[in-house]
Amino acid sequence: MAGARLKDVAEAAGVSIKTVSNVVRGSARVAEPTRERVLRAIDELGYTPNASARHLRTGRSGIIALAVPELVAPYFAELATAVIAAAKERGCTVLIEDTGGDADEELRVACGLSDPLIDGVLLSPLRLDQSQLAGREHRVPLVLLGERDYEVPADHVLIDNVAAAREATAHLLSLGCRRIAAIGREQTPHATSQQRLDGYVQALKEAGIGYEERLAPPVPTYTRAAGAEVMRSLLELPEPPDAVFCFTDLLATGALRAAHERGLDIPRDLALVGFDDIEEAQFAVPSLTTIAPDKRQLARLAVEALLARIEGRVAGGAEAPHATIRAEYELVVRESTRL
Amino acid sequence: MAGARLKDVAEAAGVSIKTVSNVVRGSARVAEPTRERVLRAIDELGYTPNASARHLRTGRSGIIALAVPELVAPYFAELATAVIAAAKERGCTVLIEDTGGDADEELRVACGLSDPLIDGVLLSPLRLDQSQLAGREHRVPLVLLGERDYEVPADHVLIDNVAAAREATAHLLSLGCRRIAAIGREQTPHATSQQRLDGYVQALKEAGIGYEERLAPPVPTYTRAAGAEVMRSLLELPEPPDAVFCFTDLLATGALRAAHERGLDIPRDLALVGFDDIEEAQFAVPSLTTIAPDKRQLARLAVEALLARIEGRVAGGAEAPHATIRAEYELVVRESTRL
Repeated sequence: MAGARLKDVAEAAGVSIKTVSNVVRGSARVAEPTRERVLRAIDELGYTPNASARHLRTGRSGIIALAVPELVAPYFAELATAVIAAAKERGCTVLIEDTGGDADEELRVACGLSDPLIDGVLLSPLRLDQSQLAGREHRVPLVLLGERDYEVPADHVLIDNVAAAREATAHLLSLGCRRIAAIGREQTPHATSQQRLDGYVQALKEAGIGYEERLAPPVPTYTRAAGAEVMRSLLELPEPPDAVFCFTDLLATGALRAAHERGLDIPRDLALVGFDDIEEAQFAVPSLTTIAPDKRQLARLAVEALLARIEGRVAGGAEAPHATIRAEYELVVRESTRL
Repeated sequence: MAGARLKDVAEAAGVSIKTVSNVVRGSARVAEPTRERVLRAIDELGYTPNASARHLRTGRSGIIALAVPELVAPYFAELATAVIAAAKERGCTVLIEDTGGDADEELRVACGLSDPLIDGVLLSPLRLDQSQLAGREHRVPLVLLGERDYEVPADHVLIDNVAAAREATAHLLSLGCRRIAAIGREQTPHATSQQRLDGYVQALKEAGIGYEERLAPPVPTYTRAAGAEVMRSLLELPEPPDAVFCFTDLLATGALRAAHERGLDIPRDLALVGFDDIEEAQFAVPSLTTIAPDKRQLARLAVEALLARIEGRVAGGAEAPHATIRAEYELVVRESTRL
């Protein structure tokens, strides 16, 4: 329906125009079932809130920035797509910046990209450290997306990485594997790698197995090539592993490739679990068991947290304490561990 | 070297400060070997041109927008990364917008995102049609990236898709394949699918083979799932194909998966060629023969064309005729066609 209006949406959803307007503005006063109904009607009718008019009224642009470490990592491209969809539901446009995981670039973004037209920033930081963030000028509302290991002066949306990594490793233990390698430890760990390593070590410990550093060789980067390289080195150990937990699916696809080149049968010779549930994991040969963070939920929670800050809907205002908001994840079992 | 200055770069490169400044500003007056030397010194010293100061002087922001149809398609994520690198070499920042391949969204981007801070726009259009583009208000310089089948009022950087698709198909013919299917034809074709289909048909014709529409069934979308679905339908034909040319690597990874599920040996039972050379193609099992557009060159040419327009360096000024600029591609042979 071209040119659908507020009135059409209200009729289709069986609610008042005021309610539709509340949903579009992101008011917290709408009950969830009603909100879902209105969003569905908006979607079906192809209604676009008249953003310009609203923004003129509020002095806001309706543009938020999303900064991720690297778009060529499919996890971040998928997360960005989920953020765009979540923002669109709320009548906002997203501009994306690829920081390359560079701390200076991340700080620049956290300070609002010097673009006065940006209402707020969602930042998925990789290297930015606490002291840098603490010192930032509070020019635009900021919400962090993804794991950090320190307190930050910003709302923060994440999954429980330690628990997820523990579950991935426990799954391999439940198959009878006892020499479980880990691919993803870093020499100078960032939060993601440290938390996933902690979960791996915890699961081993619970099974009475000690941590062997040579079963978790350091990786130079989180790429397919690094995953393949580290897998090759693990297969040359005097006692090679019978399973591998990879800290990202990208590392896992590299490990799969290296195991294939050595003629190994996965999962019989080597069981393999990844992390991220990128789309490629479903289509890999063999398909990949992995931890699937709920990206849609992560995106919605992050956009909601940011809009609440932008629109001043946080009790206590700008000085309100910052929240840590957890999203769900699940272990998805596929061919790479199906014995 | 933290806080490297123009002077340090000039010293390291053995040129005058003026020359470094010319390189940073993208002046065409610097000889290529000198330019390379200066860029290398900039890179080694970690020199960041003082963008803010320069932009205050020129009235420009140093921010360009890049709009692509979908970041979850790895080709576009890789292209975006190449554009970011090319822009960085020129002291520019890139903000990315994912248009979802929506024509209205593409038009909005082509009109400059209503953001006065954006100096220019690189647009990789999917659905935007000629009449819409012709009617756009010329608010910001625009360069198109990727194939179109019509004349557009903008510079345009692309590869020769027809020739590349012909070469991919001819490669399959050279292996002795005679029933070559195509995955990627669309019901309402956009330029990419039409040009790749044309190249496929031309190669068959040159080999004395007629085009059979049922060997090129329509695909609903350019996704892995669609590639797998169409591959399954092709394998159920009374006379199934002995080879497949997929119009994107994403379709090809879906086709690989479907062939694997049917227990086929690739390439012996079925040879397979993709298009795009996404990183995944190297790591797929089996690795994927594909057409590799030179993404780095595409990105550099596009950024250069846009900066030339932004900086008024085009002979004839804003009214100068629009150029079509071709980048290179090559066929990369891997396991999926190595008999």
